Amino acid sequence: MSDTTSADALFRQRAARVIPGGMWGHLNAARLPAGYPQFFRRGDGSTLWDVDGRRYIDFMCAWGPNYLGYRHPEIEAAAASQAAEGDCLNGPGEALVELAELFTSMIPAADWVQFQKNGTDATTTCLTIARAATGRKKVLVARGAYHGAVPWCSPSVLGVTAEDRANLVTYEFNDPESVRLAAEAAKGDIAAIVVSAFKHDFGKDQQLPLPEFARLLREICDREGAALVIDEVRAGLRLNLGGSWEDLGVRPDLSGWSKAIANGYPLAAVTGADWLRGAAAQVFVTGSFWCGAVAMAAGIATLKVARRDDVVAHLERLGTRLRDGLDLQAEKAGLRLRQSGPVQMPLVMFEDDPDFHKGEVFCLAMLEQGIYFHPKHNMFLCAAHTEADIDRAVAASEIAFAALDPST
Amino acid sequence: MSDTTSADALFRQRAARVIPGGMWGHLNAARLPAGYPQFFRRGDGSTLWDVDGRRYIDFMCAWGPNYLGYRHPEIEAAAASQAAEGDCLNGPGEALVELAELFTSMIPAADWVQFQKNGTDATTTCLTIARAATGRKKVLVARGAYHGAVPWCSPSVLGVTAEDRANLVTYEFNDPESVRLAAEAAKGDIAAIVVSAFKHDFGKDQQLPLPEFARLLREICDREGAALVIDEVRAGLRLNLGGSWEDLGVRPDLSGWSKAIANGYPLAAVTGADWLRGAAAQVFVTGSFWCGAVAMAAGIATLKVARRDDVVAHLERLGTRLRDGLDLQAEKAGLRLRQSGPVQMPLVMFEDDPDFHKGEVFCLAMLEQGIYFHPKHNMFLCAAHTEADIDRAVAASEIAFAALDPST
Repeated sequence: MSDTTSADALFRQRAARVIPGGMWGHLNAARLPAGYPQFFRRGDGSTLWDVDGRRYIDFMCAWGPNYLGYRHPEIEAAAASQAAEGDCLNGPGEALVELAELFTSMIPAADWVQFQKNGTDATTTCLTIARAATGRKKVLVARGAYHGAVPWCSPSVLGVTAEDRANLVTYEFNDPESVRLAAEAAKGDIAAIVVSAFKHDFGKDQQLPLPEFARLLREICDREGAALVIDEVRAGLRLNLGGSWEDLGVRPDLSGWSKAIANGYPLAAVTGADWLRGAAAQVFVTGSFWCGAVAMAAGIATLKVARRDDVVAHLERLGTRLRDGLDLQAEKAGLRLRQSGPVQMPLVMFEDDPDFHKGEVFCLAMLEQGIYFHPKHNMFLCAAHTEADIDRAVAASEIAFAALDPST
Repeated sequence: MSDTTSADALFRQRAARVIPGGMWGHLNAARLPAGYPQFFRRGDGSTLWDVDGRRYIDFMCAWGPNYLGYRHPEIEAAAASQAAEGDCLNGPGEALVELAELFTSMIPAADWVQFQKNGTDATTTCLTIARAATGRKKVLVARGAYHGAVPWCSPSVLGVTAEDRANLVTYEFNDPESVRLAAEAAKGDIAAIVVSAFKHDFGKDQQLPLPEFARLLREICDREGAALVIDEVRAGLRLNLGGSWEDLGVRPDLSGWSKAIANGYPLAAVTGADWLRGAAAQVFVTGSFWCGAVAMAAGIATLKVARRDDVVAHLERLGTRLRDGLDLQAEKAGLRLRQSGPVQMPLVMFEDDPDFHKGEVFCLAMLEQGIYFHPKHNMFLCAAHTEADIDRAVAASEIAFAALDPST
């Protein structure tokens, strides 16, 4: 914490000398209230330890990759077994074939699959394939959506040129009229419409897609001969193992996956429809480690466990328990929460909290009780979370909400 | 091989159904002569086994990542030890700090470092940082150079828009006049000059940088206030542990690293000079798995072994033995080879072989003797290669060259 002799503080001092800003991107603890740790030592199931040995029930799940629990024994065993043979060789191993067959059998919209390392690799590849297949340039994206951290999609424009974004046309998530206008503006040159599985913009209320919005995207793509691309990087495998929009009856032409799919091993994927297979075979998209068999073995094991254990149902049940429990405690404290989006990926914000002050005080009070919450970004549940974890978090919230009580 | 009941053939049949073209990118065996395996099962030291159990002395080294030998015991132990604690958590582990300190202590031009997953992440990040620091857009790149497989740099323009490349200005490697012309064309708007550590374009003779060429790039960057970016992704740690241009006395402002740096674990890095530290801290560049501590632990162990064992000297010694041995055998067979570039990264081509027919026949004859060579792409040596490996390859070449003898 503020103790300058803590291990975390000492690592931060050393890091500040050799890493710009001490850490990069979304994992820079400078983006969190003072008091959050920057460096972590250990994970096990739903539990996380920082470098000072402080222990947390973790509701960030490594920002998504922890899906079945840190160091899940079956995933670790599959990875270790593959590692004993080989990982990155002169080409793929048989794990590639098995994983690809699993993906295409599990996801109705997936006729084929390619694998990468980063979520950004997957979303960028979707655009390249869509442009190759259609011979067109324009891509419709929702304003404020996060699709990665390279120039075409980074949330920052620092170091980005106007040309990097010249072929994007924006619409508003869940706003059909804005989509119609964007499609009109790009008419005849639409390669793809890109949409997140649900709206999970940083610091904003989450929104599940409205059925009429989802259907309109599908209709426009069908009419224009464009590819509907669902960005499943964050939501994938947490809402529906067959694809996040399966319940809506709307199927994408391309989907980008990452985070959860190999339970923390670096892996991403693009799945696609048959009409895009030729383009996917022809574009040149590759990476030095993309054939790595260990991450693929972890992916195989992850998908099998997800299906066998009906992980989505578990996440929904515990997510509902958490949301209801927090609402009840907040009500008792005379506070009004804004909880939005799917319960499996909780976002807990406060009414009348434009600068997130309440959220930060609340989350720090949770952190002090060993509950790792995030005040502005959606959180994640994993299969290793238990009812007891949820109940401990809810009990901690009673004390944390009291820290916000204006009367105390 | 052509046996349709081989394991390789059966995996290819299954892959063809679920992976566009059966495999993507540079690892697609369709880019090699028929007879090369697509799927691999095992690696150990300098030895590689395909899924049919055929064994090779491997001179591709997973296209670069195999630097110390497949499954090097010290690297595997370091990775396993970290994996037992945690890999991808809510933030980095202390491995990040130790690895960053190692990089900056080993590489004179590196005042700081950031880590990624793909080589393409590193080169793209270099451009973003250079543009952020200079407020300029143009980037000078050598025509035909490979800097990754995303739209700004992919060797294919399929699915790429004109805008993706609008800010590139090309020059010819080792041609000072072409650099002067490119710099003149972009004058006042040059963010960076990007250059490979040496010329290693696919299917072309390799070229080490001429001193006057290297110095000119440095001079132009100094005069224009632009960043000199060396792409070390392929050459890094094989020519000079302190950076490939250290012997030339020319230091870059930014370097992109990957492949060898964690001996096959997925890791990339950008190192930079102090004047770019602020820009590097401010740009938003990140990835879900970039804090993964296992790859960093592997990186730490790799750098330590590289330094302790003077791996570069070993690679040079064996590379010279291979080049000399092949030249001698070719001469005996009445053939003239074109071997170019650094001996540590051999490229073996033939005079009077515009369509690579000789190269393909030769490499297939090597493959049949258990030597994995590539006919068009530079190869790689690793620390696990022995004099006996080299001598076996040279002995095999006597038979393979005979396959080319026009008199037989």
